[in-house]
This record gives sequence, structure tokens and C-alpha cells, in this order.
Amino acid sequence: MANIRYLCGFSGSNGLLLVEPHRSTLFTDSRYTFQAREEVWEARIHIASHGLLAALGDALKSRRARPTRVRLGYAPGQLTVAQKATLETSVGSRVRWIDATNAVEKLRAIKDKSELATLRQAAVLISDVFRASVRKIRVGMSELDVAAEIEYLMKRKGASGPAFETIVAAGPRCAWAHARPTSKRLGRNELVVLDQGAILRGYCSDMTRTVFLGRPPAKVKRLYKAVLEAQEAAKAAIRPGIVAADVDAAARRVLKRRGFGRYFTHSTGHGLGSEVHEIPRLGRGDKTRLEEGMVVTIEPGAYLEGLGGVRIEDDVVVTSTGAVDLTNAPRDFIEL
Amino acid sequence: MANIRYLCGFSGSNGLLLVEPHRSTLFTDSRYTFQAREEVWEARIHIASHGLLAALGDALKSRRARPTRVRLGYAPGQLTVAQKATLETSVGSRVRWIDATNAVEKLRAIKDKSELATLRQAAVLISDVFRASVRKIRVGMSELDVAAEIEYLMKRKGASGPAFETIVAAGPRCAWAHARPTSKRLGRNELVVLDQGAILRGYCSDMTRTVFLGRPPAKVKRLYKAVLEAQEAAKAAIRPGIVAADVDAAARRVLKRRGFGRYFTHSTGHGLGSEVHEIPRLGRGDKTRLEEGMVVTIEPGAYLEGLGGVRIEDDVVVTSTGAVDLTNAPRDFIEL
Repeated sequence: MANIRYLCGFSGSNGLLLVEPHRSTLFTDSRYTFQAREEVWEARIHIASHGLLAALGDALKSRRARPTRVRLGYAPGQLTVAQKATLETSVGSRVRWIDATNAVEKLRAIKDKSELATLRQAAVLISDVFRASVRKIRVGMSELDVAAEIEYLMKRKGASGPAFETIVAAGPRCAWAHARPTSKRLGRNELVVLDQGAILRGYCSDMTRTVFLGRPPAKVKRLYKAVLEAQEAAKAAIRPGIVAADVDAAARRVLKRRGFGRYFTHSTGHGLGSEVHEIPRLGRGDKTRLEEGMVVTIEPGAYLEGLGGVRIEDDVVVTSTGAVDLTNAPRDFIEL
Repeated sequence: MANIRYLCGFSGSNGLLLVEPHRSTLFTDSRYTFQAREEVWEARIHIASHGLLAALGDALKSRRARPTRVRLGYAPGQLTVAQKATLETSVGSRVRWIDATNAVEKLRAIKDKSELATLRQAAVLISDVFRASVRKIRVGMSELDVAAEIEYLMKRKGASGPAFETIVAAGPRCAWAHARPTSKRLGRNELVVLDQGAILRGYCSDMTRTVFLGRPPAKVKRLYKAVLEAQEAAKAAIRPGIVAADVDAAARRVLKRRGFGRYFTHSTGHGLGSEVHEIPRLGRGDKTRLEEGMVVTIEPGAYLEGLGGVRIEDDVVVTSTGAVDLTNAPRDFIEL
């Protein structure tokens, strides 16, 4: 749906967009009649009464395309087996299926000026939310209480909502890289991972900070310092032309050198835009070359069972001179 | 993922569950090592290092199943074309694909005692949230402000978060059945549709109320009364054995009789459980027979461009003697 919104403006939850050389058609259902009329530019609107795929099939059948067949680009990673079967039944052999994986995502990966301005605002907003919410964190609050404060603050600052379920994970639970907040209460001498993002006018931010409730022991300080150093190395590696996997390797090298290599169990980052996870992936095997105007997260982490985890994440834009931070919350190890 | 959580307890975002006659295996990635160990019952845990589908393919290849091939039940509506292609490449011709659409969903549709207790608590929670938040609604607040209050209150009352993006739609915008909240300010003499749901211990609620800011004109009162009457007719139609489409027809008949038939642009309701939209669908064409222990929403509405929309939604459980409400917020037309 993010592709459809990018191409024609429609933000409803049920839609199909057929893009042809001289026209585009948005298929949606009657719940979205008014909304489509208000939001959509360029594309014609077709309100389907018996399923969008059937309506799309009818439209394709009506195209005269002899002697060649209609070539239909689609994303095999987004169409289900059932949806493809429905379309195949309805349009028969007239269609030649072309794998167009990431065709629109590649356009979306490079942000224009107005998109960058909105992404920067979303990043500043979440940084402000962090600064305000971290002051309210107290031993005895539950993870859910903290998440509620964070999400309330982001909406009061103009966000339409969280870009993903806010992560607040304390103590041993923050060794789970993707823990959901629970009613667990924050205890003294615990690490707390706070991973939060806001949607502002359709664009996302995504920022993580890790704080300590008390005076951190030396090992925890070493862990924090190593993760921060890994993040800085990844940021320093960024420039137009570098391969995504090499940015990941830069962070991984630091954590390995500091003895935490095997505790870094995820990728260094990902593209960020109207969706919170976009291409490229800053991880092993992604050969994408970074380009000016891409926005990515840089979020190395290390997770030690028993001790807890540390993750530090910023959003950066790739410029001709390297990475520029969009998020601006402090990166020092905060002791509460 | 809701099916996987139902069958083995795992709540992470990346997992595949292989269920065999004498064993089950959960495939997930290294981010979820600790979480899987803590959450999963019965199933063995396989941490895949190079993609879950590849690991599943390897597991299937290792099964001796001559002379017959391995029969693999899958949901064509949930597997993408790309995922199926990956699996086909990796397991080759050893697998016979069986369409098992809704196999787990049918189990999930009938709730047991403990699930019903949680669903009732989630429904009471959202009813309490409505009662508290409606008192705070004032002309001049934005739709987003109201949504922020609602979602904050649900978390303070113990919900892990909203079951879907809370809908607050005022004035002409509430003629959009699924409008997202915006910075539009609530104005005098406007209808406001409030559609909210909370997740409590993994189970959802979903409730809509429509209020008026001022003294509603006669036509708006007639509209509200017709929608409420339609909702009551649908609830009265519910009993074990009735076909889902017939519950929808009961609501539709009332709105047609009152002259609003063509403004009722969606189905009457849907199943509710660990996901906010489950089977059955109380709409045209759904032949499912309702059974004791099913939980469904009853939410007729009518949307008139210019005037606005009215929707009234409750969660009910199907019992031997008919529908019993789980949500308990007032259904009178509230004037603020």
C-alpha cells in the first residue's frame, strides 16, 4: 500500500493500482469512495463491487494487445499465491507476468527535498519525545507505562502515531532485541532499551537509546562504549557509492574487536521513509550501493543473556560528503 | 503469525511453524533466541541462520516419505508467490501442496473459557476508556488529540496498545468509514465517529460510538436511530446455527426500510480474537454457521457525504441463548 500511496496519493487500506503507459487506475472498494476522490491525483478511480482482483482482471481483459500479450509487472514478494491464482483465472493467458520486485521501492529509496524535510521533522520530533520522556522514567514504573508516555508525547507533538510498537525493555528482557513492553516494573541497576519512532505526515522516524537506572558497572560501560563506537564507525563509512553490506561490516568489525561480535545478532540498519523498513538493508549480503538522498537507520546492538542489551540507533541521510544525522538526542550513556 | 502464536506461544515477528503428526518445529532467527526459549511450549526451536524458508526446506527434504510424497498444508492467501517459489526450489518434487486455508483460523474462531474471559476484559477496558475519554472531548480539540487521549488511557488501564489505529473522524470526514485521525479540529454541530480497540494479553476489543457536538438536527437523529435499530436487529438475529450472511441481512433490512440502505457500505461485522479481523465475516456471501463461543463485532453504519456518518459497534459472544454483549458503553446518542 505504501507503493500505491507514493504513486497516486491514496492512503486507504484496500487498493490496487494499475499503471499503464498513458493512464493509471486505482481500484478500491465503496468504503473509500470519498477518501479516494479527495486523495488521489492523476489516477482514475474504480470502485469495485466484487473484489479488486476481479475488477483488475476485467480491466486487463479489455485491453487489446495482439499480437503480443499484455506484460504485467508485479512483486512476487507481495502478491499471495491465492491472489495470483484469482488474477490468472480472470485474465487467462493474455498476461505475461514480469517480476518487478522493488521497482517502486527503488524510486522510493531516494528521497526528494520535501520528503527529506518531513523525515527530518519526524526525526527531530522523536528526539524531542525522548528528551521529555527520559526525564519521567523512574524505578517502579512498568515498561508499558513508559511506552504509554512516549506514544502520548509523540501524538501531542503532532505525530499521527507510532511508526511501530514502541519497545521498552528493561533488565534481562532487554537482551531480547525485539521485546514488546510488558507490565514488568523497572528495577534498580537495570539497562533499559527504548526504541521509538513516530509517523509525521506519512513519514517515519526510528530511534533507539539505552539508559541505566543507577550507576552502571564497568562491564556495562564497556558494552555501551563498544556499541557507540560501532555506530560511529558505521556512520563514518557512509558515502555515496559504498555497498550497504560494507557499512554493516564497519560496525561489526568494532564489536568483534571489543569482544562483543557474537552478541550483535541483527543488521546494522535499514532504509527509512513512508515505511519503517525500506530498502536497502545495511546487512550481510546486501550489495546495494548507497546514493545521495537515501535515508537509513544506523543501529548496532549487543545482547548478553543475563546482563541485558544495548542498542543505539539514529536516522541519517546520505549526502555527497557522508552521513548527516537527522535524529539529535544525546548519545552519552544516561544514568537515571 | 497469529496462527503460530495460537499453536505454540511464540509472539515474535519472524517465524515459521512446521506441524507434523508427532512433533512440531518453530523456525525463527537469532534475534528471537531467548524469546522463543521463554515463550514456546511443545515445539522444538530451530534458529535459522540463512532464512526460515531454506531451513524449512532442508527439514522437509530430510523426511523419508517414500512411496508417498510429503503432504504440506499451507494457506495460499498467506504465502507469497516468492515464498512458495523459494520453498519449491528447496524441497523439489517431494512435497504435495494441500490448500489448508483457514485450517487454524477455524480452530481459533471458537474461543475457550480463558480466551472468553480475556476478550471480555479487553471489551470492558475499551468501554471504560470510552466513558473516560468522551468526557474530555471539546470543540477545538484536533482529531489526533482525541486519539492520543484514547490510546493513552487504554495503556494506563493495562492494554499493551491499540488493536488498530484509533479512528476519530469529525464532521464531513466521518462520512469516510475508515478515516485516519488528522489535525482537523472538532467543530460545533458535528458528528464524531470514535472507533477504538485495545489489545489485552494478546486479545483484541473493537468498539465504535458516534457522538454529536451540540444539539443534533432531526435528520441526524433519524440516522442515529436507524443505525441503532439495525444493530439491535443484527444482535437479535444471532444464535448458534444462523448463517453469517443472514445476520448481515437483518441489519441491512432495517437500514433499507429507514431509507439509508445505500449508505451502508460495509459488512455488519467480523470475528474478533487475537487478531482484530478474524473469520467469520458477517457480510454478504459468508455461509459460515455461527457457533457457541464465537466472538464477533456488530457494527452497522451509514455514511452520507456532506452530513457525515454514524456507526455503532459492539463485541458480542455467541451463546446457546443468543448474543451477549462484551462491550458495555452506553449506546444512547450522546450530545456534548
